[in-house]
Parts: sequence; structure tokens; C-alpha cells
Amino acid sequence: MGSGEVRFIGVVTRVDGDLSTIRVYEEFCPGLLGVESYSHLIILYWFHERDDAGHRGTLQVYPRRHGVNTLRGVYACRSPSRPNPVGHTVVELVGVDGCELTVRGLDAIEGSPLVDIKPYSPRSDSFPEARTPDWSKNGPPS
Amino acid sequence: MGSGEVRFIGVVTRVDGDLSTIRVYEEFCPGLLGVESYSHLIILYWFHERDDAGHRGTLQVYPRRHGVNTLRGVYACRSPSRPNPVGHTVVELVGVDGCELTVRGLDAIEGSPLVDIKPYSPRSDSFPEARTPDWSKNGPPS
Repeated sequence: MGSGEVRFIGVVTRVDGDLSTIRVYEEFCPGLLGVESYSHLIILYWFHERDDAGHRGTLQVYPRRHGVNTLRGVYACRSPSRPNPVGHTVVELVGVDGCELTVRGLDAIEGSPLVDIKPYSPRSDSFPEARTPDWSKNGPPS
Repeated sequence: MGSGEVRFIGVVTRVDGDLSTIRVYEEFCPGLLGVESYSHLIILYWFHERDDAGHRGTLQVYPRRHGVNTLRGVYACRSPSRPNPVGHTVVELVGVDGCELTVRGLDAIEGSPLVDIKPYSPRSDSFPEARTPDWSKNGPPS
């Protein structure tokens, strides 16, 4: 089946309400060239507090934050307990200061390692009419 | 800086035009419970042909597929050569047959290992008005 290694490229250094500060490690900082020309970014991060056999062995959950008691597969919800603890959030880019980004809407706790940053492009990433089950319309956005 | 391990949960078994078949390994297949209630999914996969020191050491590229000769950081474009070779595509879910998904629009070659599948939710993932640089509007969608 195989496996791969991710090297963490930075860290979430601060969470203050809906604003978060991300520090990209100096080694990877040249990768930010031009990032300010985008209003939104896709942040992939590591659920480091779920990186253990128990959480990574989770395949079905009750998405109770959404007020439902129906068992769902982890590939049909955004549970942080899942085989690969990779989180995904689309954020608004508020500011760039050297190797530091300020973003709005990142759903990651302080200290979360960063896996990747990708520019958000409506052409490939925005599907406003996508269908979701009714339960997902309650509670937090993801 | 640290690192993490991803275990591949499946593979892209077939690409036929804009349709692709994904097989989730039996071990992880219970994670698909309820996935058919979504019209779109986020697929995270592994650029396995770029998983070497050269490609993973790439921090800046010329996005020539988009007809530009301006150097860009890998975090300001969707280059498959990047420190962590994780690909991200939003796809339309066409069908589910046991552990196999048929999807439309996956930008991955046959044999690509799967890292994660997340349901797409417009509430958190759709930003039709997001700003992008002019060059990204030419060429392929990502």
C-alpha cells in the first residue's frame, strides 16, 4: 500500500479570534514569492494532536458538532480523527510580512504544523451549487 | 521542524478523459459510508513521480503552462514540484460502487496514491469572488 513522508514547512504561531498567524520556516520561505496576488489560500496542516494509532484508526464517527446521531465515514465528513491527519481550510489572506502570513478563518489550533499552502482559484476550487446532506448545513461550516 | 507519515489509502486505477476511477483499499473502505450524499469531493493525492529530492527541493517555478515567464513561489501556484508532493483537486462524484468511486475532473495520473478524501461543502470551500492574478486565468484551471 505504501506510505510517504511530509516535512513540515511551518507552523501556526498564533490564533486570535478568526485571525491566525502562520510562520513559514526560513528554508521554505522563497516558496511564498507572489502569494500576495491571491485573496484566498488553501492551507493544508497536520492534526498533530490526532497523530496516534487510535485517532488514525478511526474510520466512522458521529458528527455530533452538527447535531446528528448518524454514523458517517471519515471520508464523508471533516473529522480530524482519520487515517491521515491532514486538515484543509480555505482562508482569506489578510497580510504578508516576510515569512509570516496573517489569515482569516483557519480552523487549526496554535502549534499545528503546516504541510502545504496552495493558492485558491475559483476556476478550479469554487462550486457554490455543490450538494451536501442536510445535517452538514447545521453547526460549524466544516 | 519535524515530519509526519502518510499511509496511502487507495489509488487512482483508471483515467479516461475527464472521468477517473479511484479504488479505496479495503482496510479504509468503511470510511466511505455516506459519501454518496455529496455531489463534490476534495481529493488529496500524492505526486508519486515527484517524490524525490530534486522535485521536493523546488521552491520557485515559471508557470509556463499558463503562458507566463515570471518566477513564482510554489506556494503561489499549483506546481506538482514542491516540498510536500500533495495534490489537491475538487471533483464531481459521479458514482460509488463498493470501494470504488468514479469522479469527474481529477487532475491526477493513473497510479497516483490517495492521501485523503474530504466532502466538499460550499459553506467553507466555495469563494467564487476570490481574487487571483491575471496570468492564472489563462491555460489550465489549476
